[in-house]
Amino acid sequence: MQSPVRDYLTEVLDSLDAERGGAVADYIPDLAEANPDLFAIAVTTVDGRTYCVGDDEVEFSIQSISKPLAYAAALADRGFDTVLEKVGVEPSGEAFNELSLESGTCRPRNPMINAGAITTHGLLVDDDADVESRVERARSFFSTLAGRELTVDQALHKSEMDSADRNLAIAHMLRNYGIVDDAPHDIVDGYIQQCSIMVTAKDLAVIGACFANGGVHPVTGERVMSRRIARQVMSVMAGCGMYDGAGEWLTTVGIPAKSGVAGGLLGTLPGQCGIAVFSPRLDEHGNSTRGVLTFRRLSTDMNMHMVDAEPYGTTVLRDVRTSDDSTTFELQGVIQFSGAEYVLDNLAADETGTPTVVFDVSQVSHFADVGRRMILEGMRRVREDGRRVVLIDPDDTLPDPDLGDGSYPDRS
Amino acid sequence: MQSPVRDYLTEVLDSLDAERGGAVADYIPDLAEANPDLFAIAVTTVDGRTYCVGDDEVEFSIQSISKPLAYAAALADRGFDTVLEKVGVEPSGEAFNELSLESGTCRPRNPMINAGAITTHGLLVDDDADVESRVERARSFFSTLAGRELTVDQALHKSEMDSADRNLAIAHMLRNYGIVDDAPHDIVDGYIQQCSIMVTAKDLAVIGACFANGGVHPVTGERVMSRRIARQVMSVMAGCGMYDGAGEWLTTVGIPAKSGVAGGLLGTLPGQCGIAVFSPRLDEHGNSTRGVLTFRRLSTDMNMHMVDAEPYGTTVLRDVRTSDDSTTFELQGVIQFSGAEYVLDNLAADETGTPTVVFDVSQVSHFADVGRRMILEGMRRVREDGRRVVLIDPDDTLPDPDLGDGSYPDRS
Amino acid sequence: MQSPVRDYLTEVLDSLDAERGGAVADYIPDLAEANPDLFAIAVTTVDGRTYCVGDDEVEFSIQSISKPLAYAAALADRGFDTVLEKVGVEPSGEAFNELSLESGTCRPRNPMINAGAITTHGLLVDDDADVESRVERARSFFSTLAGRELTVDQALHKSEMDSADRNLAIAHMLRNYGIVDDAPHDIVDGYIQQCSIMVTAKDLAVIGACFANGGVHPVTGERVMSRRIARQVMSVMAGCGMYDGAGEWLTTVGIPAKSGVAGGLLGTLPGQCGIAVFSPRLDEHGNSTRGVLTFRRLSTDMNMHMVDAEPYGTTVLRDVRTSDDSTTFELQGVIQFSGAEYVLDNLAADETGTPTVVFDVSQVSHFADVGRRMILEGMRRVREDGRRVVLIDPDDTLPDPDLGDGSYPDRS
Amino acid sequence: MQSPVRDYLTEVLDSLDAERGGAVADYIPDLAEANPDLFAIAVTTVDGRTYCVGDDEVEFSIQSISKPLAYAAALADRGFDTVLEKVGVEPSGEAFNELSLESGTCRPRNPMINAGAITTHGLLVDDDADVESRVERARSFFSTLAGRELTVDQALHKSEMDSADRNLAIAHMLRNYGIVDDAPHDIVDGYIQQCSIMVTAKDLAVIGACFANGGVHPVTGERVMSRRIARQVMSVMAGCGMYDGAGEWLTTVGIPAKSGVAGGLLGTLPGQCGIAVFSPRLDEHGNSTRGVLTFRRLSTDMNMHMVDAEPYGTTVLRDVRTSDDSTTFELQGVIQFSGAEYVLDNLAADETGTPTVVFDVSQVSHFADVGRRMILEGMRRVREDGRRVVLIDPDDTLPDPDLGDGSYPDRS
Repeated sequence: MQSPVRDYLTEVLDSLDAERGGAVADYIPDLAEANPDLFAIAVTTVDGRTYCVGDDEVEFSIQSISKPLAYAAALADRGFDTVLEKVGVEPSGEAFNELSLESGTCRPRNPMINAGAITTHGLLVDDDADVESRVERARSFFSTLAGRELTVDQALHKSEMDSADRNLAIAHMLRNYGIVDDAPHDIVDGYIQQCSIMVTAKDLAVIGACFANGGVHPVTGERVMSRRIARQVMSVMAGCGMYDGAGEWLTTVGIPAKSGVAGGLLGTLPGQCGIAVFSPRLDEHGNSTRGVLTFRRLSTDMNMHMVDAEPYGTTVLRDVRTSDDSTTFELQGVIQFSGAEYVLDNLAADETGTPTVVFDVSQVSHFADVGRRMILEGMRRVREDGRRVVLIDPDDTLPDPDLGDGSYPDRS
Repeated sequence: MQSPVRDYLTEVLDSLDAERGGAVADYIPDLAEANPDLFAIAVTTVDGRTYCVGDDEVEFSIQSISKPLAYAAALADRGFDTVLEKVGVEPSGEAFNELSLESGTCRPRNPMINAGAITTHGLLVDDDADVESRVERARSFFSTLAGRELTVDQALHKSEMDSADRNLAIAHMLRNYGIVDDAPHDIVDGYIQQCSIMVTAKDLAVIGACFANGGVHPVTGERVMSRRIARQVMSVMAGCGMYDGAGEWLTTVGIPAKSGVAGGLLGTLPGQCGIAVFSPRLDEHGNSTRGVLTFRRLSTDMNMHMVDAEPYGTTVLRDVRTSDDSTTFELQGVIQFSGAEYVLDNLAADETGTPTVVFDVSQVSHFADVGRRMILEGMRRVREDGRRVVLIDPDDTLPDPDLGDGSYPDRS
Repeated sequence: MQSPVRDYLTEVLDSLDAERGGAVADYIPDLAEANPDLFAIAVTTVDGRTYCVGDDEVEFSIQSISKPLAYAAALADRGFDTVLEKVGVEPSGEAFNELSLESGTCRPRNPMINAGAITTHGLLVDDDADVESRVERARSFFSTLAGRELTVDQALHKSEMDSADRNLAIAHMLRNYGIVDDAPHDIVDGYIQQCSIMVTAKDLAVIGACFANGGVHPVTGERVMSRRIARQVMSVMAGCGMYDGAGEWLTTVGIPAKSGVAGGLLGTLPGQCGIAVFSPRLDEHGNSTRGVLTFRRLSTDMNMHMVDAEPYGTTVLRDVRTSDDSTTFELQGVIQFSGAEYVLDNLAADETGTPTVVFDVSQVSHFADVGRRMILEGMRRVREDGRRVVLIDPDDTLPDPDLGDGSYPDRS
Repeated sequence: MQSPVRDYLTEVLDSLDAERGGAVADYIPDLAEANPDLFAIAVTTVDGRTYCVGDDEVEFSIQSISKPLAYAAALADRGFDTVLEKVGVEPSGEAFNELSLESGTCRPRNPMINAGAITTHGLLVDDDADVESRVERARSFFSTLAGRELTVDQALHKSEMDSADRNLAIAHMLRNYGIVDDAPHDIVDGYIQQCSIMVTAKDLAVIGACFANGGVHPVTGERVMSRRIARQVMSVMAGCGMYDGAGEWLTTVGIPAKSGVAGGLLGTLPGQCGIAVFSPRLDEHGNSTRGVLTFRRLSTDMNMHMVDAEPYGTTVLRDVRTSDDSTTFELQGVIQFSGAEYVLDNLAADETGTPTVVFDVSQVSHFADVGRRMILEGMRRVREDGRRVVLIDPDDTLPDPDLGDGSYPDRS
């Protein structure tokens, strides 16, 4: 049997293939020459499986989709305080020809608009970085996320520099306000190289899954950014990723996302998957026409809306078994607040009075911080009730289970 | 043993009790006389347990927290198309003295600002509704959500009408643009009665859990609004709930929320719980000072951030067992896209070749639409491979399991 | 011989009669029923001659043209400080649905927009004025300017009150910000009565000439407002009179002006004349289509542009005559800065050394303050040179000619 | 006797000398080093007399006062259509960090803001002009207006280029929108050289008088720009010259003006004089503190407000004399609309019935177009009445007096 997931995606691809609305970006020749009929959809699950359909091996320039990725890198290189001092996180409903600097601070309003992205690029590595080192930082970080070596299309970069007046205007204005220090031409040169990194739809799906998985690479299992950075980037994409119409996207799609002018569209569904579409024709907002339709289909048909979370809480208690002298609470899955709360509520309701209470966490895949703290506190209270606490944890999912008073549960 | 959840909340309450920042709203005497030291925190899980600490039985006026609730009622009474034609969903970064009407349509930008909330109130029931029937619709719907009969504080209502110039200005302007038809004084009168409905922190936590639970009441199990309405309301709160600073709230707290000028603050963590705080002192944005701090604590300490979802996908496959003639896939929990995908991937990888494949869904609590469709498609493909498909479903969690071709799995 | 001025106006009227662009205001029935073909042009010189052509006796409602007139009345009733504290003088480039309140003060930006005009109406008479007394103040002041008793069209007033939502919105918002204190409904009622005062094109031309003549009625010679008020009102019309497009009007027409939605258009050319057009069809800015074209024609063809002032300075020295023992400086016309400067320069250049210098001002029509001071100072210096100063002033155009040291010139 | 005008200016200078408010511009060292105590006032009448007091021979950089001058040059070089297509004429109330481009056209809103001034500089000469030729065009035109050879301070130019980020940002944005074509760096280089032209207060007063005199140089009598250009530039200064606060300036000062960051302030009082102040300390709007105070004094004390025009009309009829067979109308001064109308009204009222009517224009200094047309039409009508028309015009002030039918008046 073949998994039908790929077939689902194929069906979506086929159903939208006839859509010819919009037009390929034409402000530089390299983009204008793109084949407008190209179309690819890719999904990568947080545990590392990728489903691709259509032209998923065709490379295109990452363009503005580089913005959230570089933002993650800058947060890692400089820390939250430094980055937030230079670039805000508020949505900008303003028109295309506005700089969207915050009054007072003159910070760009968020890292998803050009002013914010140029500032963010300038923050890469450290204060002494030059064009080359910042571009290499971006290229190498994006490569780590994608799981393969990506390259900069230098011909495209040259071509875009010829019509970079808008970005040069922004960079000069940012230096005028003391937001950036480097030569405006250098920062824009580096930023445009960053935008000229070539990716496939498959790359973007894998990259999206890195965020959706809380910063852990879905294939290698390597942590590629901190959980906090992944959360920050997804939050900013949720609020500011789709230019104007942020509210429309949030209500009808509900997947943090970012689009690029070459036709790419990256989405991250927290805890579930990265999603990518590639189709060069753009709508009047500059988003891939078929990309937007694909995300609407996925969100609606496949319940992929961020606030549409199901109540997993009660599923973490796999089983409760009572023998003569012990009651065993068998946990499973991921232990978050609501799951831990459910376990603790069941503990509180336990009237067996058996001398021993066994916590079997061998089926638990992961304890969130809050879950770990709550379960340990539950164990402490059980022991305070005069009962023996035994922990079954063969995979060390709950390391150093200090009950808060220096004591530990017995091990089985 | 007592569940430590309440103790956690008590600790948060105690740690923030010394915070005296901000000031009680003073634009009408009734609000100005509030005891500024009152403080309550309440959490209600989606499966119906409520934890309250502090002054959780003190009633206060719901004020602007009525906005998302009335929005839900209007969506139910009039349908999405009618409501969206009159009120948008986009964040408004505009200043306090702006009407925030969209250019072109003259729609209020969203239902969380006064212009949108007044319009939304006017949509309650139907075109022929009068003040009384709209107010009763709000009161009765809010009561259903809270699980007890709520009342309108008529003295407060009278008092607020005396300083209702701003809302009257908005209502006249809305009628000027044809957004509302009724007499502006009537709509504002009804809207202010809606804002004068009295609630407790506990009420708000239960109400929040109705949304977090996808529209099903956490205590009664009754469906109080459609899943789509719950999703719409939470999405709008996520983008527009906290006035300016929406991006700051989204990145640092990440819980869809709405505050009221009497000191209430309502949050909904999808799939997990409703959260409420009550503390009358307001910060410069008009949000409860201690309320905001409490939400920050909960989001940080208890991992309650919307995009911080854990990967539950792999937990739905409880067990795979193979005997001589059959392979049994035992599912559990909620079957969403990522869970179904995991099951299907395991099915595809199955090399046992047993003549029978058993799907045991007796531990499944709920199939999301997408999960149901994917699992049924998986069964169909298994049978196409020439294997017998058996379904174990004692609780009818997967009713009418048509495999898409009019045939059904065998039952065990 | 008949003066050709009227024929000039007839020619302009005829040449624009074929213009049918625009549409009659239709937001209330009374305006919608206006005969769209009506057309009148009227000009009144500052010395009181009026030329009218077309439908110059047809009455129409004054509408927004009442704004500058009521502003003059309010300045007279309350003084500059009180009025400027409540209403600013800055142009508002903002769109129609904005309130145009200044940030910080919440003052309406100027008295020509509705918010400013409603506030201005509320300032009429004194703090205790009621609707009736404010309306009567406006009606009676406008009548004084027009030189005949004007009336309020009560049917029109009633009709406009039915669609006064926008103005009611503004009035409520103004009270919300503490700019007005009275009941919003009352102020709007009075304001709309003020707008319903009926005038003819001829009335408006006479009214315009009152301003152009520095506050002195062109026919009666009575001072109807202070020179400072006339200057203030014309300055505000110059900057804010024609909604958006103030710069376009200033560069291409250059005549301070105000239009009304019933088709009236009032202009004031300082020192020369009042101009009025009446034609009900309005362009997309809400100004009379033919009215705007007429003003363009007059400005271009008849050099009626405010900054197109000719150098009159040298014309004030009518003659210099020298006899054996005296030199006579014969002055004429209006003595402003540039004229006085020219006289003084000639005095300084006088090398006749005659024992007596005669100043003959019998042909002078008016000394501006600066002119008076400069000429008196000139006399003083002549006497300091040891020469006798004689003043010929049969009409007492230069009363109390104190030379600054308590002495006076001899009289002839 | 000495003319007291200079003494008046000295008194103003002395009375404001103690004013130390504001601060010297410090964004580049060359400006920061200016002596803050310098103070000069200069007035040049339209007939060529200049009064200077204080540090009137000290040179300073013209800075933004170059904007209206270069605008005049561009209008002359390119014509109104080309210039208006690229730069608007509307006031911009927007904040400092806005580009003030018009939506739709992307034109800078007016030539007095930096975006408009940079565009205007780029329009100098023709499409093929380079930096050198544009700068030379500005320098040479400014020199013609000032009546002496001005120079560019190259050290200042170099120094300003080092902090030209804001202007470079603007220039890049203008090229982005297709408003300018040249290399942004070149245009800004040229523009800053234009701003670095060195002038004295006396120069500025003479320059101002060129505009006030309708484009004719007050000293040489040479026409240095068309009357239409002078009118356009003064109109734009009236509406947009003083940044925000245009309405305040128009109501309280009423003199078209432009200020520069080096402390210069240029005013033009149409038909009367050019006015200049130099004092380096700037107020919070960037205008010379003492400069603004000086203009307020002059406007108030010396009645120098643009709309404060006196009624000169009746002064043009110098005398009417009747002998047995002729009536003589003796005209004088400048014949504008209101003057011509007065003459025609007197002609119409003439009941002498003498066979001959004599028009003596030997004292007329100038006929405005409208005046010429009206008087000729009056002559024609007199002759139609059967009377002989005789013209006395020794200086040919009314050349080619065709009465509209190919006939001419008799000459005396």
